[in-house]
Amino acid sequence: MLSKAQIKYVNALKIKKYRQQYQAFIAEGPKIARELLRSSIELEGVYALESWIRGHRDSLRAIEAIVTPVSEAELKKISALTTPNEVLVCARIPRPEANHQAVLNREMAVALDNIRDPGNMGTILRTADWFGLEYIFCSPDCADVWNHKVVQASMGSICRAKVFYEPLANLFEAHSDIPVYGAMLAGASIFEQQFGRTGMLLIGNESAGISPELHPYITHPLTIPGKGGAESLNAAVAAGILCAIARNQQ
Amino acid sequence: MLSKAQIKYVNALKIKKYRQQYQAFIAEGPKIARELLRSSIELEGVYALESWIRGHRDSLRAIEAIVTPVSEAELKKISALTTPNEVLVCARIPRPEANHQAVLNREMAVALDNIRDPGNMGTILRTADWFGLEYIFCSPDCADVWNHKVVQASMGSICRAKVFYEPLANLFEAHSDIPVYGAMLAGASIFEQQFGRTGMLLIGNESAGISPELHPYITHPLTIPGKGGAESLNAAVAAGILCAIARNQQ
Repeated sequence: MLSKAQIKYVNALKIKKYRQQYQAFIAEGPKIARELLRSSIELEGVYALESWIRGHRDSLRAIEAIVTPVSEAELKKISALTTPNEVLVCARIPRPEANHQAVLNREMAVALDNIRDPGNMGTILRTADWFGLEYIFCSPDCADVWNHKVVQASMGSICRAKVFYEPLANLFEAHSDIPVYGAMLAGASIFEQQFGRTGMLLIGNESAGISPELHPYITHPLTIPGKGGAESLNAAVAAGILCAIARNQQ
Repeated sequence: MLSKAQIKYVNALKIKKYRQQYQAFIAEGPKIARELLRSSIELEGVYALESWIRGHRDSLRAIEAIVTPVSEAELKKISALTTPNEVLVCARIPRPEANHQAVLNREMAVALDNIRDPGNMGTILRTADWFGLEYIFCSPDCADVWNHKVVQASMGSICRAKVFYEPLANLFEAHSDIPVYGAMLAGASIFEQQFGRTGMLLIGNESAGISPELHPYITHPLTIPGKGGAESLNAAVAAGILCAIARNQQ
């Protein structure tokens, strides 16, 4: 049985201000719930149908105290989905501790400049996860990755991503020894590029591309050669092609 | 000034049944409107703010009779967007005549199996257009490409696509001399594949992948090698990577 306070709290987490205040987010559906249960992310509450709880007794044993059985009608009151999907989890926003220089010296990372669409953001997290790129640096004007739409579109990849919000110019300035590969409309063909073990794969805004103030930091402006009529590629598709080709060389 | 009949007609085109009955579709916003005006697609009606009409006098001269100036409030009555965007166009669904065998002998094509999400569908059309792939074969259970959400997500690429709905097994059966490259979770690495000048790039459903009944027709099962935790790639991202690599060899 859901309390009024629980309903109020969960619904508050649909709003960025409250996610930041409470440092928590929501995720829905059996797939993401299962991934969260297996991850190191700290859970605050699991709201699920009896049938789902019965099927997950073993994985819920250690966190029984925070599991609340709910009816379908109750789930509807807290869900952000048009069709609620068995289970909703509240979890703490993880704060990955990172020595940026150590990370960037060791592995490739993704940098996102002003990606606004939650669906694109989630798809980029999922794509980076597929290619084993854990570190995601977002400009402060990117969509919030803890937005429930991003969480859903990431299909569970949010559980593994290490996400940082910071001005990209500062990041590039502080780590000027790391190559920055920028996906642009003009540049060398990505197919001609030799990618090293490290570097930042920079993807720009859905309609404006990479901000002009970041251009001076791009050590390798790259383009995805096209032959047709479209003016540009979707940002998540461009990110996918860049990640695929860069990672294939490693 | 909009008539009641116009409002009723435009709104009917948001529903597949009526699109099929009237063989027409709607598209919104200055970008797609401009591309439609330039294309060979037959227009039925242009509903636009006075300011937009003033800015496009030259391209509207030949079709003055079907241009209706509307107020913002009127545009809201017919728009499918949350925020109507200056202009809405009704156009005839084009019926590309094609000798499939001649097309398939000449160029690469895309085949889509049960792609359900209108956003993915539109993004795939946009991606195919970027890579100069004109011919798109869709299984009958794919989202309708003339759905306004697909039209919007295609960012104008719908004006150039040549789309056919037909059972893919029949298509593959009838053109068994053409290679079928299937994007699968298991198969040879797409990076090892030598693509020819022709062939069909087959993309499967968002969650189920390519239907089992199509597997026997796949001459080249291919996979996009991943290193991380995600279980799969978004269908539009997978399509983008497959198109990029296949087209780069041509």
